[in-house]
Amino acid sequence: MEPVSVGIVTPQKIGFASPLALDCGRTLPRYELMVETYGALNAAGSNAVLICHALSGDHHVAGVYSEGDNKPGWWDNCIGPGKPIDTTKFFVVALNNLGGCKGSTGPNTTNPETGKPWGPDFPLLTVSDWVRSQAALADHFGIAAWAAVVGGSLGGMQVQAWAIEYPARIRHALIIASAPELSAQNIAFNEIARQAILSDPDFHGGHFYEHGVVPSRGLKLARMLGHITYLSDAAMRAKFGVELKAATPSFNFDVEFEVESYLRHQGQSFVDRFDANTYLLMTKALDYFDPARDAGGELVRAYEKATAQFLVIAFSSDWRFSPARSREIVQALVAAGKDVSYVEIESELGHDDFLMPIPQYHRVLKNYLDRVAGEPS
Amino acid sequence: MEPVSVGIVTPQKIGFASPLALDCGRTLPRYELMVETYGALNAAGSNAVLICHALSGDHHVAGVYSEGDNKPGWWDNCIGPGKPIDTTKFFVVALNNLGGCKGSTGPNTTNPETGKPWGPDFPLLTVSDWVRSQAALADHFGIAAWAAVVGGSLGGMQVQAWAIEYPARIRHALIIASAPELSAQNIAFNEIARQAILSDPDFHGGHFYEHGVVPSRGLKLARMLGHITYLSDAAMRAKFGVELKAATPSFNFDVEFEVESYLRHQGQSFVDRFDANTYLLMTKALDYFDPARDAGGELVRAYEKATAQFLVIAFSSDWRFSPARSREIVQALVAAGKDVSYVEIESELGHDDFLMPIPQYHRVLKNYLDRVAGEPS
Repeated sequence: MEPVSVGIVTPQKIGFASPLALDCGRTLPRYELMVETYGALNAAGSNAVLICHALSGDHHVAGVYSEGDNKPGWWDNCIGPGKPIDTTKFFVVALNNLGGCKGSTGPNTTNPETGKPWGPDFPLLTVSDWVRSQAALADHFGIAAWAAVVGGSLGGMQVQAWAIEYPARIRHALIIASAPELSAQNIAFNEIARQAILSDPDFHGGHFYEHGVVPSRGLKLARMLGHITYLSDAAMRAKFGVELKAATPSFNFDVEFEVESYLRHQGQSFVDRFDANTYLLMTKALDYFDPARDAGGELVRAYEKATAQFLVIAFSSDWRFSPARSREIVQALVAAGKDVSYVEIESELGHDDFLMPIPQYHRVLKNYLDRVAGEPS
Repeated sequence: MEPVSVGIVTPQKIGFASPLALDCGRTLPRYELMVETYGALNAAGSNAVLICHALSGDHHVAGVYSEGDNKPGWWDNCIGPGKPIDTTKFFVVALNNLGGCKGSTGPNTTNPETGKPWGPDFPLLTVSDWVRSQAALADHFGIAAWAAVVGGSLGGMQVQAWAIEYPARIRHALIIASAPELSAQNIAFNEIARQAILSDPDFHGGHFYEHGVVPSRGLKLARMLGHITYLSDAAMRAKFGVELKAATPSFNFDVEFEVESYLRHQGQSFVDRFDANTYLLMTKALDYFDPARDAGGELVRAYEKATAQFLVIAFSSDWRFSPARSREIVQALVAAGKDVSYVEIESELGHDDFLMPIPQYHRVLKNYLDRVAGEPS
């Protein structure tokens, strides 16, 4: 069939009244998750696919909110009738992670104990905390086991945690453009982004909501920095060139190169749609992710509990989470005796390629998931 | 001979009363340069070597300032009796570039017209402006032509400009860990560093001196960012690891990884010794460097005027100015029919390797320069 859009979708806020014990030692007595679903759950409850989002993603993964809406969900090219994650075959569940800023309980929602925004009092979370809340979400929908859990980047870390921590509840683990843990350079980028936010006088120790301001300078810098890691050097050159916009230098600090204009725009638009406390929380969750840590430093042992089948995908031009990092995952899975397929996609853009409709990439996803859809439930 | 230190050195401030026409269209009526020299100029004036510094370098390249001084100049491992740049053979000249903050006329020195620090009124400079001021410095010492001009990184750009703009005044051009112009990614890093400084409320549009503050948050972030590009990912991992310093996460924003501690320290110590306006100026000089621009976009044509012999050195682990960038220089020089040698040093640290006493690297420099010293004057 010709791929089409899932059309108009409606998010739903789902409340959870059971307490959630967190890795930091604290417990959330109750919480809400903002969720979108596409397609229908079959009678056996066996066709559900969970989409895990990355640093700045959310629950709005596919479709639009109204007729005239020209901003579809962030992975609309991949999810819908006839698309790689085919909503005529799968019940697709997407959420805004706990601690997010798009409707799920997080720093910018109200702390019931104080009646004020949680702000910096919202606990820092781990990938495992997210997976635990996603398991409660699966319970809510009556999903005993996901047909597949799919995620790119930080999303791919959630997929790994699912496979390790809930082996009986995940049949296929699709880990895309991810890593077994951050590199020191990845942590360094996160640390600078955090310092940019934490040192912004408008951050007010995270209590900026009460001051009627946002730490826009810091958040803007953090996002600009992120974008450097999302694109390859070659892609930046192809996209922006290195020529002055004018014939001669301006000898001031106005925009003189296309890439400056791109970064300033990306930074500013992020400030308008994202929360600084959530950004901090997301970078910490990335830093903390290290399944080997809880397995005596051995990734192979960490993966031993998994029973899912794995598909690992990396992109040749990705320098944030390079193919070498994905191969670390693959090698450890192989050493642990797991069923794993690995595909390295020739690509040009960099880390952002995991969001792009690269034909080879989408063919791999589609072939794999069509096979999953055909499995006996 | 066994390499030894040049010993105790004394900087000198040299005044220039002839106006310096700048690429921005303005003219500096007079200026001062902070200079150190090592060794002695021979009677023919033919054994002089100019050292061009990089973004945060200065005139203090070798030796110490007193008996107990345990902080020798920034390239002390390479310059001195018996060292690759042998001060028993060469008269070595090093300066703090114009616009610097270590004694040469720049944003933190007094503008004679106002009696206040120049601050943001100090003109933005180009690499060619520096080379023009360095030519005046050569005149001052009675040096008709440099035996060699040597520089790493931004210093290597000055070497290129020397070869192009003063072909008769430079016999050997040693271009180390450099590039023919910045990549879009290089410009992106610079732009984020600039935005960090410019958006710091303590920057006061560059007039922070009068406010008794420094834009420490912005300058710190800029420097942390720089350090990411000075080290390779592998070197960061080898140096700092990716393990938590404690057994478990702290779930706050204190230092949790060694690399965070390193970056914070580097950032803070830079604030104590560098000027924010100079940092801005240096990044702009980097951005503007593009000899091909003035030659119809063709690097080969830009190099055509050069008559020097070239030695180009790159480091395998350098991702700021990778060997591929040095090979662009080499290929254009070859196409322009120039005499050029190219050496790629196997290295691990990254861009910072150009400052390190890597045996193969220092052997190449020493062999090359010993040959230069033996040339008839």
